[in-house]
Amino acid sequence: MKRDNYIRSGHGSGGKLMHQMIEGIIKEILGPESVQLDDAAILAIPTDRIAFTTDSYTITPIFFPGGDIGKLAVCGTVNDLAVMGARPLWLSCALILEEGLLIDDFVSILRSMRLTADMAGVKIVTGDTKVVNKGAADLIYINTAGIGILESEPTRKNIEAGDVIISSGTIGDHGIAIMAARNKFSFSHNLVSDCAALHRMIELVCKKFPHAIKFIRDATRGGVAAVLHEIVKNRPWGAIIFEEQLPIRDEVKGICNLLGIDPLYVANEGKAIFVVEKTYADDVVQLLRSTKEGNGACIIGYIVTDFSGKVIVETAIGGRRLVPLLVEEQLPRIC
Amino acid sequence: MKRDNYIRSGHGSGGKLMHQMIEGIIKEILGPESVQLDDAAILAIPTDRIAFTTDSYTITPIFFPGGDIGKLAVCGTVNDLAVMGARPLWLSCALILEEGLLIDDFVSILRSMRLTADMAGVKIVTGDTKVVNKGAADLIYINTAGIGILESEPTRKNIEAGDVIISSGTIGDHGIAIMAARNKFSFSHNLVSDCAALHRMIELVCKKFPHAIKFIRDATRGGVAAVLHEIVKNRPWGAIIFEEQLPIRDEVKGICNLLGIDPLYVANEGKAIFVVEKTYADDVVQLLRSTKEGNGACIIGYIVTDFSGKVIVETAIGGRRLVPLLVEEQLPRIC
Repeated sequence: MKRDNYIRSGHGSGGKLMHQMIEGIIKEILGPESVQLDDAAILAIPTDRIAFTTDSYTITPIFFPGGDIGKLAVCGTVNDLAVMGARPLWLSCALILEEGLLIDDFVSILRSMRLTADMAGVKIVTGDTKVVNKGAADLIYINTAGIGILESEPTRKNIEAGDVIISSGTIGDHGIAIMAARNKFSFSHNLVSDCAALHRMIELVCKKFPHAIKFIRDATRGGVAAVLHEIVKNRPWGAIIFEEQLPIRDEVKGICNLLGIDPLYVANEGKAIFVVEKTYADDVVQLLRSTKEGNGACIIGYIVTDFSGKVIVETAIGGRRLVPLLVEEQLPRIC
Repeated sequence: MKRDNYIRSGHGSGGKLMHQMIEGIIKEILGPESVQLDDAAILAIPTDRIAFTTDSYTITPIFFPGGDIGKLAVCGTVNDLAVMGARPLWLSCALILEEGLLIDDFVSILRSMRLTADMAGVKIVTGDTKVVNKGAADLIYINTAGIGILESEPTRKNIEAGDVIISSGTIGDHGIAIMAARNKFSFSHNLVSDCAALHRMIELVCKKFPHAIKFIRDATRGGVAAVLHEIVKNRPWGAIIFEEQLPIRDEVKGICNLLGIDPLYVANEGKAIFVVEKTYADDVVQLLRSTKEGNGACIIGYIVTDFSGKVIVETAIGGRRLVPLLVEEQLPRIC
């Protein structure tokens, strides 16, 4: 097809223009399995239990250091399945395009989705495309729903005092990279989003330590603080983390200080938090460090019974303060 | 929780405000299974083959005669699974909310989703909520992905000349009802969208006539014309439909005449087109008519070998004209 430069209303109309875009761009890039024109994909399920998840991505800017909205949409949904103990297999791709989106940008984003999906070993098998008028979206929103087959299933049930909290690496990189890109900070050229698919790293540790891993969560919106609150909420235990041990890049620290942002609340897109039985904690850290995605893994805290339902941070000089769940986050539209 | 009147940026932040909205509104209405805070739903699959689909809904206005965006989001995805021969079981619900959306409207839409899902026998099992700033969406967009278990699988493979094309009822109701609502036509008070879940009607005819039903499609964007083009595209057959036999309400005809719109291209949200072996065509029509959703079913045309790849309409006086696939549709944002 001859390509226009911009997305127009007719690209979402059900008419010839839409069919041309689907055949000539979307299927061409995402592959023939992304049956955009059929109503549903037919999938053969090798197990009797699956995990099913969905996420919409509305990030701005749509291209950022370390990724773009397409890469994010694949990694985010892959990670949501992985932390539930599922092996991600299939994704859907539902696009909301704003009139005026550059076709070249659209093509770049689709290529990024395809590349990320190929590298992660997942297939985009069904989709939908809507076009909304100028001013009714912010260039492009992507929803990916995902299906994975269940392999293990970490639950919070058997968490107990003494369990160790591990981060798979530095925290705050994604949110601060987005913030820096939005504000065009000149001193942030080394800062990139950590956007990555974590399922292989997660599968590796779950297979090696099936009974030691009690809980896994990717620390996205709300940051590490939100995950810690999820771990302790309405439970007879609390979490203590050590301020000195939190792995935070100097650039992230610098921008957080400058803007008065606490990195504990900043979104990550390539980091997972693990709760692990203490006997195996060091082994889990070692194994995580042997992977590309987990090479900055470290222990950041432990589970306690003294502060049930609460998250506490211990400072370098031994002081302790509460980490509340914020009412609102500081950085909107980071995913 | 104390309810604010409007959606604010913080409702999508990963902080306390978001958790309160999810616990106090979304889970409260959609039910505890809509695990908005967990990363994925775990589902037990009773068969080895599933159908998987996705659709984003961006309709404006969000409330319209005969339904709202919530009802549409459930019915549309249920229908996409049903026409593929699957029994719809589970839906996801991913919300993009614009700052300033009235909480009361949001609650109405969620209630409508729950009611429609309950009536259809499907469960909303996972979800996601994003809030975008004012002017970056049009009040609310909903994505529903759906999973169904495969029961039968109509394909186009065995279509042949003489097969009969059946519509499950009147055409053009949804698109014209939306058009009338947008333009506040005073003479359209009887016109309502046909928005409905069709899976029970479809299952009924597929079970009764497993070998006679060769193809089913819901006639949404692009209308009946788009479905007919899907049937004949790149195939050694064509389709002829009879203008006189097309079931079109007087109000729909009137508005179409007024605005110069061809009802063949207008979206439906509660109508399916069937291709049926001719021996069974009358029986299929009778069975469809015994259902609430199919009570206006009738034969609208047949498959021919003369016009391969083409759709032809035969007029009352015996003339024939081509029904092209339009380049753009006349009515954007109708789903």
